[in-house]
Amino acid sequence: MDISGRIRSLRREMTDENIDIYIVPSDDFHQSEYVGDHFKAREFMTGFTGSAGTAVFTKDRAGLWTDGRYFIQAEQELAGSGVTLYKAGEPGVDTIPEFLEKELPDGGVIGFDGRTVSLGVGENYEKIAAGKGGTVRYTEDLTRRIWTGRPALPKEKAWLLDMRYSGESTASKLARVRGKMKEAGAGVHLLSSLDDIAWLLNLRGNDIAYCPLVLSYLLIFEDRAELFADGDKFPDGILASFEEERIILKPYDGVYRAVSMLPEGTRILLDPDRVNYSLYRNIPAGVQVIKEENPEVLMKCRKNDTEIRNIKSAHLKDAAACTKFMYWLKACCMVAGKDGDENPLKDPDTGEPLTEMSAADKLEHFRTQQDGYLEPSFDPISAFGAHGAIIHYSASPETDAALHTGKMLLTDTGGHYMEGSTDITRTFALGRISRKEKEDFTMTARAMLRLMNTVFLKGCSGTALDLAAREVFWKERVNFNHGTGHGVGYLLNVHEAPVNFRWKEVDRPAPALEKNMVISDEPGIYIEGSHGVRLENLLAVCEDEKNEYGQFMRFEPLTLVPVDLDAVIPELMTAEERCMLNDYHRKVYEALSPLLSKEEREWLSVYTKPV
Amino acid sequence: MDISGRIRSLRREMTDENIDIYIVPSDDFHQSEYVGDHFKAREFMTGFTGSAGTAVFTKDRAGLWTDGRYFIQAEQELAGSGVTLYKAGEPGVDTIPEFLEKELPDGGVIGFDGRTVSLGVGENYEKIAAGKGGTVRYTEDLTRRIWTGRPALPKEKAWLLDMRYSGESTASKLARVRGKMKEAGAGVHLLSSLDDIAWLLNLRGNDIAYCPLVLSYLLIFEDRAELFADGDKFPDGILASFEEERIILKPYDGVYRAVSMLPEGTRILLDPDRVNYSLYRNIPAGVQVIKEENPEVLMKCRKNDTEIRNIKSAHLKDAAACTKFMYWLKACCMVAGKDGDENPLKDPDTGEPLTEMSAADKLEHFRTQQDGYLEPSFDPISAFGAHGAIIHYSASPETDAALHTGKMLLTDTGGHYMEGSTDITRTFALGRISRKEKEDFTMTARAMLRLMNTVFLKGCSGTALDLAAREVFWKERVNFNHGTGHGVGYLLNVHEAPVNFRWKEVDRPAPALEKNMVISDEPGIYIEGSHGVRLENLLAVCEDEKNEYGQFMRFEPLTLVPVDLDAVIPELMTAEERCMLNDYHRKVYEALSPLLSKEEREWLSVYTKPV
Repeated sequence: MDISGRIRSLRREMTDENIDIYIVPSDDFHQSEYVGDHFKAREFMTGFTGSAGTAVFTKDRAGLWTDGRYFIQAEQELAGSGVTLYKAGEPGVDTIPEFLEKELPDGGVIGFDGRTVSLGVGENYEKIAAGKGGTVRYTEDLTRRIWTGRPALPKEKAWLLDMRYSGESTASKLARVRGKMKEAGAGVHLLSSLDDIAWLLNLRGNDIAYCPLVLSYLLIFEDRAELFADGDKFPDGILASFEEERIILKPYDGVYRAVSMLPEGTRILLDPDRVNYSLYRNIPAGVQVIKEENPEVLMKCRKNDTEIRNIKSAHLKDAAACTKFMYWLKACCMVAGKDGDENPLKDPDTGEPLTEMSAADKLEHFRTQQDGYLEPSFDPISAFGAHGAIIHYSASPETDAALHTGKMLLTDTGGHYMEGSTDITRTFALGRISRKEKEDFTMTARAMLRLMNTVFLKGCSGTALDLAAREVFWKERVNFNHGTGHGVGYLLNVHEAPVNFRWKEVDRPAPALEKNMVISDEPGIYIEGSHGVRLENLLAVCEDEKNEYGQFMRFEPLTLVPVDLDAVIPELMTAEERCMLNDYHRKVYEALSPLLSKEEREWLSVYTKPV
Repeated sequence: MDISGRIRSLRREMTDENIDIYIVPSDDFHQSEYVGDHFKAREFMTGFTGSAGTAVFTKDRAGLWTDGRYFIQAEQELAGSGVTLYKAGEPGVDTIPEFLEKELPDGGVIGFDGRTVSLGVGENYEKIAAGKGGTVRYTEDLTRRIWTGRPALPKEKAWLLDMRYSGESTASKLARVRGKMKEAGAGVHLLSSLDDIAWLLNLRGNDIAYCPLVLSYLLIFEDRAELFADGDKFPDGILASFEEERIILKPYDGVYRAVSMLPEGTRILLDPDRVNYSLYRNIPAGVQVIKEENPEVLMKCRKNDTEIRNIKSAHLKDAAACTKFMYWLKACCMVAGKDGDENPLKDPDTGEPLTEMSAADKLEHFRTQQDGYLEPSFDPISAFGAHGAIIHYSASPETDAALHTGKMLLTDTGGHYMEGSTDITRTFALGRISRKEKEDFTMTARAMLRLMNTVFLKGCSGTALDLAAREVFWKERVNFNHGTGHGVGYLLNVHEAPVNFRWKEVDRPAPALEKNMVISDEPGIYIEGSHGVRLENLLAVCEDEKNEYGQFMRFEPLTLVPVDLDAVIPELMTAEERCMLNDYHRKVYEALSPLLSKEEREWLSVYTKPV
């Protein structure tokens, strides 16, 4: 059945259930950014494969909302499907609430699976429906009825992270969380966000591609905790350890009933942004809800010293892998030669033409050679030439472009190691590239370096620092349609909220950047149909000088991989920026040279030479 | 009676009224920043004369909270008074709520005059008292009982601003506001903020020094409006004009009763940050309150084209006055000579020694020669040498320092003109100054110029731009303890919220900077006991290029007065920064030269020459 057939089936179900507008988000039951195949209902209904987006179906219209990272990709994937792309955040484009207000008939019904939307979003749908004298229906997953062959929920084993990796015991973390519950006057704390649960219990699993998490909910009481998850996933060793901490295992979907049975007078702490709408609606009227950000959220962002030490070690290995890849790629270019603009690149071992996917495989190969490497930390991006302008491009056999000289290859990849997670973007010149591409590369490098070298006062959030990178672009009347940076988890989610660099203020201020937080610095430029450049380093927040003005803070680069000098025009950089680049490259050489072969080391000394 | 005698009397009143903690803010009934003498109860009770600060009295402790602008001044003024200075915002210093929580006994009573605190603040006091099983008493102004000789409320005449100055009629403004009321579903709108009322009614007065406002409240209904103000202030011409707009005049304090009589079912729109606690508490239970920012707030910030044209004209006159002052001051330095480090400056006409106050008088004299000049727009700062480090220094006969060469004079002054209001800070080198002073001056000039030349995307608030100025300081591990900029009213308040440049995110995001907003750009450095530098230009927000990335925005300097080149070290500036300075000085010369005498013009060409 093609997309339009699926939409027809959905509309029949909507008619049967008397639903006027049906909403299909891309979320699982835990507001996860990446979701398992079982939850990809929005992709099933529209064909759009991006990680962020929501589909809305009326009786005669179908729309998909996604953000700037995915505009180009969504346009391509939605072509011919009958689904209209709504570019979220663009001037003049209705938001979903605005669309609902216009389209919902008086007394109409908005339908959605209440487990797949957050409390705030569900309440907003409720309000919009009420404004029209209508209601919401949140107990029906209509896509379930038409999705034959839907993937089952995963059955992967869970495992515990040892103290030498986590740096803090579950007992200690639980004690800190119970302290916060007490401060808030709460006797119970409901956790539904998978990375908060994983961090708290030092628990890891394999239920979502790229996210080593376990599908679960957690109810923390003063004297015990109840973990709702598939019992088959837990070996005896974990169960024994749980018993010590008075953690009781219960069936995954039992949480809805457990919440509905909470005795009157209970005070429950939950995070309205991290609990689904159905779960919240199951809480009895006599229970008092204390809505606060999960205390785990900031605890998890502030890495402990063991984690930071491990993270540095993981980044060193990752940098060695990425640099070996760069050495190999540049060697392929040398072999291809400079006698024409578009000489095809070949695999030196097999003689096969190199493509986006085979290059990504090669990079993955270098990572697998590193000790403690587990898996990619997200869907790797390997984008050649014009594909580089598609911000979250994912090469597939249909799109897999052959590499040749004269263009750039953008790789945005990362790995989960036992010692933490990496996320790095490098853009490489393959042979000789155009002046315009070099200008764009240089501008991006300047922005990345400027932000990395910013000094700031304690108390400052990423919102006030975003300009350090973006100013370089804005001066040229250019912009990139994504945040400049995001928090990064420790063997958890590679995008870890709420730490970020962004320029638009929102209602909930970003938290101040504190010592041992980890954040990415990744400006980019995207020229549709031509090329894209993005450069991304992960940074650790450190303390700098303390004086009469306060505690100054700075960043330390965790990522230590050369910025491709073949694409840099030093004359377009200020003296200060050249110093920043040279300082960074000196650090890269010092850190990596012991990990490389003699040939690689000699090559690295050339690619890290001062400009 | 000295301060300690007044505090003893207050404590007797507190005992009589069974009040445990009494709070004396420096506000009038309208949350004004500057207040008339009648309202200066906090100054009466503590001796601290700064514009911002709150006094709190327990039975055995007295504290004054003020912000970084006033730390040095407050320390001096509170010395010996028995009142402890609490430096708000400094690490480890209790906030007033924290202090109240610690000091209020169980079942205790917090007292304050409910007309002098905002709704939010009053509700917070209520919550703190309730947390201790206590209450608030907000109906007693205890200071009234001990303040003999308290100044009466002002009796100054009100007047109307002509269309050629306001650019929009009251009828048109009222229609826009009523549109917003309708959008919010409100039948009544209560306005208590004096500048919002003045803007809306094109009304000006003279009730507060430096603020051409009329003490009043306004209730806007769908078919009429009721203005609560002293009737004696309104000449017949205004009354006739009011009648046309169906504006009915009522006694000033009648608003409390009018609000209490609103019929059940009324929906009233008010701004919780701009309505006092007593007024809010007078609203009957059956009235539904819609809490939103006053729609007038952003309307007022977005100047219309007539206002912008006028503002430019006012700034040109003001620049001529300030530049003539600079010429005169530099001439005084020449006469004093360079043969010693500390040659006294003398008035060339009278031969009297020049002081901070006489210099300020001279600057005011040049302003009074300008057409349309009305009065200073705030208490002028004229601070010599070490006084420059006191951010809101106000020279008095006791502190009035004599000027001599070898140090700097900082002047932060402004004027209300019929064509708008100005606010400018310049720091001048008197003769030869030290290398350190020049370094600090150059750093400040670089920061001011960088922010002024920032380009940004529409939608950006001042929070995301503050770094453009502050980065220069932070790189040197230095900071200034005040915002980098504030909105400026049109012949209204010189500090006009909520537009600003600041680096700390707060719960309510600053508004995006829009075309025709006016904002100050005023970094500074303050070395206690030695010197201070601040440079301030007012900027108008303009549209720049619009392209596929969106609408870019930039600033246009309204202030056109030289930055003292005698204090600049060009070698400490980047090439880009020197260009910014030279471009600015070229603009200054082009704009001002037609307004100056031949001698002044020749002098200006030297003081605006490229570096």
